[in-house]
Amino acid sequence: MKALVLERKGELSIRDVNLPLTMGPADVKIAVERVGVCGSDIHYFTHGRIGPYVVDQPMVLGHEASGRVVEVGAEVKGLAPGDRVCMEPGIPDPTSRASRLGLYNVDPGVTFWATPPVHGCLTSHVVHPAAFTYRLPDNVSFAEGAMVEPFAIGLQASVKARLQPGDVAVVTGCGTIGIVTALAALAGGCSRVLISDLQQEKLDLAARYPGITAVNVRRQELAAAVREATGGWGADVVFEASGSPAAFKGLADLLRPGGCMVLIGIPIDPVPFDVAGAQAKEARIETVFRYANVYPRAIALIASGKVDLKPLISATFAFDDGIAAFRRAAEGRGSDVKVQIKVSDGPPT
Amino acid sequence: MKALVLERKGELSIRDVNLPLTMGPADVKIAVERVGVCGSDIHYFTHGRIGPYVVDQPMVLGHEASGRVVEVGAEVKGLAPGDRVCMEPGIPDPTSRASRLGLYNVDPGVTFWATPPVHGCLTSHVVHPAAFTYRLPDNVSFAEGAMVEPFAIGLQASVKARLQPGDVAVVTGCGTIGIVTALAALAGGCSRVLISDLQQEKLDLAARYPGITAVNVRRQELAAAVREATGGWGADVVFEASGSPAAFKGLADLLRPGGCMVLIGIPIDPVPFDVAGAQAKEARIETVFRYANVYPRAIALIASGKVDLKPLISATFAFDDGIAAFRRAAEGRGSDVKVQIKVSDGPPT
Amino acid sequence: MKALVLERKGELSIRDVNLPLTMGPADVKIAVERVGVCGSDIHYFTHGRIGPYVVDQPMVLGHEASGRVVEVGAEVKGLAPGDRVCMEPGIPDPTSRASRLGLYNVDPGVTFWATPPVHGCLTSHVVHPAAFTYRLPDNVSFAEGAMVEPFAIGLQASVKARLQPGDVAVVTGCGTIGIVTALAALAGGCSRVLISDLQQEKLDLAARYPGITAVNVRRQELAAAVREATGGWGADVVFEASGSPAAFKGLADLLRPGGCMVLIGIPIDPVPFDVAGAQAKEARIETVFRYANVYPRAIALIASGKVDLKPLISATFAFDDGIAAFRRAAEGRGSDVKVQIKVSDGPPT
Amino acid sequence: MKALVLERKGELSIRDVNLPLTMGPADVKIAVERVGVCGSDIHYFTHGRIGPYVVDQPMVLGHEASGRVVEVGAEVKGLAPGDRVCMEPGIPDPTSRASRLGLYNVDPGVTFWATPPVHGCLTSHVVHPAAFTYRLPDNVSFAEGAMVEPFAIGLQASVKARLQPGDVAVVTGCGTIGIVTALAALAGGCSRVLISDLQQEKLDLAARYPGITAVNVRRQELAAAVREATGGWGADVVFEASGSPAAFKGLADLLRPGGCMVLIGIPIDPVPFDVAGAQAKEARIETVFRYANVYPRAIALIASGKVDLKPLISATFAFDDGIAAFRRAAEGRGSDVKVQIKVSDGPPT
Repeated sequence: MKALVLERKGELSIRDVNLPLTMGPADVKIAVERVGVCGSDIHYFTHGRIGPYVVDQPMVLGHEASGRVVEVGAEVKGLAPGDRVCMEPGIPDPTSRASRLGLYNVDPGVTFWATPPVHGCLTSHVVHPAAFTYRLPDNVSFAEGAMVEPFAIGLQASVKARLQPGDVAVVTGCGTIGIVTALAALAGGCSRVLISDLQQEKLDLAARYPGITAVNVRRQELAAAVREATGGWGADVVFEASGSPAAFKGLADLLRPGGCMVLIGIPIDPVPFDVAGAQAKEARIETVFRYANVYPRAIALIASGKVDLKPLISATFAFDDGIAAFRRAAEGRGSDVKVQIKVSDGPPT
Repeated sequence: MKALVLERKGELSIRDVNLPLTMGPADVKIAVERVGVCGSDIHYFTHGRIGPYVVDQPMVLGHEASGRVVEVGAEVKGLAPGDRVCMEPGIPDPTSRASRLGLYNVDPGVTFWATPPVHGCLTSHVVHPAAFTYRLPDNVSFAEGAMVEPFAIGLQASVKARLQPGDVAVVTGCGTIGIVTALAALAGGCSRVLISDLQQEKLDLAARYPGITAVNVRRQELAAAVREATGGWGADVVFEASGSPAAFKGLADLLRPGGCMVLIGIPIDPVPFDVAGAQAKEARIETVFRYANVYPRAIALIASGKVDLKPLISATFAFDDGIAAFRRAAEGRGSDVKVQIKVSDGPPT
Repeated sequence: MKALVLERKGELSIRDVNLPLTMGPADVKIAVERVGVCGSDIHYFTHGRIGPYVVDQPMVLGHEASGRVVEVGAEVKGLAPGDRVCMEPGIPDPTSRASRLGLYNVDPGVTFWATPPVHGCLTSHVVHPAAFTYRLPDNVSFAEGAMVEPFAIGLQASVKARLQPGDVAVVTGCGTIGIVTALAALAGGCSRVLISDLQQEKLDLAARYPGITAVNVRRQELAAAVREATGGWGADVVFEASGSPAAFKGLADLLRPGGCMVLIGIPIDPVPFDVAGAQAKEARIETVFRYANVYPRAIALIASGKVDLKPLISATFAFDDGIAAFRRAAEGRGSDVKVQIKVSDGPPT
Repeated sequence: MKALVLERKGELSIRDVNLPLTMGPADVKIAVERVGVCGSDIHYFTHGRIGPYVVDQPMVLGHEASGRVVEVGAEVKGLAPGDRVCMEPGIPDPTSRASRLGLYNVDPGVTFWATPPVHGCLTSHVVHPAAFTYRLPDNVSFAEGAMVEPFAIGLQASVKARLQPGDVAVVTGCGTIGIVTALAALAGGCSRVLISDLQQEKLDLAARYPGITAVNVRRQELAAAVREATGGWGADVVFEASGSPAAFKGLADLLRPGGCMVLIGIPIDPVPFDVAGAQAKEARIETVFRYANVYPRAIALIASGKVDLKPLISATFAFDDGIAAFRRAAEGRGSDVKVQIKVSDGPPT
């Protein structure tokens, strides 16, 4: 079975691997079709680690995936061979205390694709629990199916924000996560989203979506733009999607009294946080760790046409060119949002 | 000052009235432009009462209104003569216990236009508190401004439902309130709304909006349609917008486990309610009484283009033909959603 | 292995049964110590069925249980032989969609002790998933441990109510569930609870707890008592714990504007429900189906001394007198709250 | 009219002042009975300013007050001369956008006693809006009435935390606000509260309350104490009541997955905040700015006996010794929680 393997920091190969494909009664076997390259894949490639997670033995990369079911376990209902699906990459212990509360994403026992020592899904076949495998409607392509994973993060942020219809939101940071967060916020009820960044190319891409106003903070003060957009009242929600300590400065000033801040970006070190500023607004601050229970929501929104992720797929590489895909993604071009790898040889959807 | 007056049950006239237009320092004076005819206006006209509210002296009708500011009180900020506005018709005691909690709609001290003994706004000018008068953006017409009031009810229902992005909702009843509820639910994050009724004409109108699926319950079982739309899981939210006791039967069966029912329609008498059925789903049931704090949200959604209420305005009458407007609305044509009256002689927006 | 068996409607026996005690790796084996007799046990005994659940073959009764761990499966952590525990009687499919949402109580796949065709726990030993088995602190007796199950229902009601500190609550119905609901409400932040019933004996028992005011609705109008207790404002929460259609009449009148009604009692047939009355208060209505995630909360409150359930244990029978225990419970004495059966021969705690 | 006046930084006097006592129709006139000395009063005394609020002209101090109504305006209902009351010191614009939302505490237009340039209530009489004046039940003394204000902050924190019955909470900081927060958390449903500080005297005082465990962080690691108290799961809620940057370090480690942090203490400068740590728990973070809608709750809890604030009143001074009261409070004795001033010459309640 071929796989794209991170042999060690900086060294990728496409080669045969010998991974077990043992199926339990509640599992399905899936022929992988499309896998997106995530910032975390790139980080493992370029740095060999993310915080406490260290790549100290060869690891298959990839966790944003869609595919086609080829076999189902004896107890599986609702999925059958031939079904087009996407897969949620984190598998919790379903009986843990966190899981019983519905918070399975923060179950300390979660295993997650391509997070050492767990292999990812950039390989021809995977075995996965049926409970974390979701059918794609006919009008959702494999390429879109592999976009569900990053979109799910934006959606989790919107769920956490408890958006109310007509909210005005701000997203700080116009990377992949910033853009999907803006799209999730619009789909989730916002009347308008302001998104800020320093890179004009990224902002131009976001601004093509109706409802999104791009603010280049090199040229325009974000707080002023928010004041203008809200008649001085402030934004209902601010999504911090940059992870940059600089973005935290003045964050509370963007909010209306009683507004909400959602922290999605992950700063490496503690950031200086203006507690008194947040208190003066009596802000609620939510934090996001991956997602739980949002895959069906994500798929429903894509299928309904309310969210169009296709323009975010910047380039698609054949599996044999997978290393080139990683090099391209590692370049961090301003015009790139998502690079995907087509794993199978089948037809394009 | 001319007004459309309900002299007594069944008898309307357009005549001069002598209403005080005394302004307090926090009030504005408004030249009324457009007023929608509401079911409650018609009910007072045809029945002379709604529950405990009895028309026992002549009363000016109308409470769905937009207009143009002509004068502002000394303490008014944020509004100026010439501003195009719409008006929230219920005025609470702002220091009451309910108001201090943000629940001003259920303040027992609320006065509400065209609810005996309070006069309505089908007249050339009104004086209104600035705090309940909202500026219309340039791209929102007076006609749409007068639609904010009924839309606000649907929006209140969506806020109460605490929609999450991607929810599937059902609306029972495809009258004016049913349709605006469906639109509010879609704007508020639903991926899909099923709306049910017995009248095909109304359903056809609703089904023109993308995201709305019409279910004629003469031909199709609603529960079956919901099961099919949700893979057997059930709807996240059911909005009851008919007020018909028949609609309450089997309502809980439409819901997913942990789903929410929002009761908007007002049945005259107690309805048989299947408590055990609701418990088996551990349903949350919310009720709606008018609205609070949603006018700015409504206006933002209309201005953003996410909600288009224009197709719901079925006919517009000149003020001098106001009685004909009431007769038309009282007919209850299947193809009519909202009848409006153009109060001023000015240009159409 | 001896068990208390409902052979058929009206016929109980204590006899040997041959139930499998096969352990999975995540299970524990428990020597049962104390089992409470629930209204549902009595109902199966006297009626042979509850709604769709029909006793058509002999079934071991009992689901309110505590015991001592005697064996643990290979994967079990946090429990060891000798541990004193109580057991949550409903076991969901942990990977179902409802369970993943944290709503495992409304998972359609739940199996529940002593609900046909599933046997109960009135037997010497049971095998149970460790995830639904909870350690009792040293200061919580087996008798109290077997009270956790009914108390959990009251606690679930309090969680659903989203009590705020200082709330005033009303509980309609002073049976076992009514009393534990009142105690949960006080422990959960209420400053005061009014409880209503027709039976003075039950009310006297409840009124011994500080913070509970008993209202005998034969002598005093409940609405008047609530008005007086709240200065005319109304109760923050009304818990309906009688299941009696009569109790639903005027329920909304007890509430403050924006208050909450929690429906715990299960009426057999649909009840006439005053929708308009609930809407006039814009009431939120929550429903309760058993409980989820509250066992650790219940145990913590009992152990802390904030909730004292010991006065509610009216009589304790030896296992060999178990049939007498059922006959006593079936009498429905006004002074009885809970009858328990001591299953083991060990010392009293 | 005599008053305790801060003439300028460091200089207090008790002297006649000439403050208008003009009454509006919705106001009441109150003979002040008891006033607590707050940390903010002391800070104005010792520093002459708090952040942007500068004492640049003589200002009457005091905002924690109870008294007796001596006159009521024409429109006042529910209050009469002779009523014993306590007063909420912040008065919003009741028609502002924040107030209409129920968030009147974050209305930018609030005026607050003893916050420059607004005079406080350390004077014989005040005129106050009836809507922010609350009757004290007979069993709540004037001394306790003047404790409602600081207790309200703890209560606001508990409301924001959305406590569930049986929660385990941590309070960092055992000053006045820390202690009232712990008491509010217990009254609001917590089964147990751990409170931490460096000063043993303060901890000893708190630990006298059942349910509170004191942790001296000089001797014991707080995280270890929390792990032990919660079986390794973590606290449901952490209330930060110290305002000390040091307390923020490791705050997320105290929480269970999905737990809540409530920030009450006000750090002067931005604090280093571990965003990634909070995200790993997907923590919700709430902030507190004074309080809204909690005075009736506070009074109900005190009257019910669930909260006993009397042990927190460390010393009471006659009005003529008011300057000595300030000097005592400014000492910051470890054994002092609250110093009060008895303004009137009447009997002690």
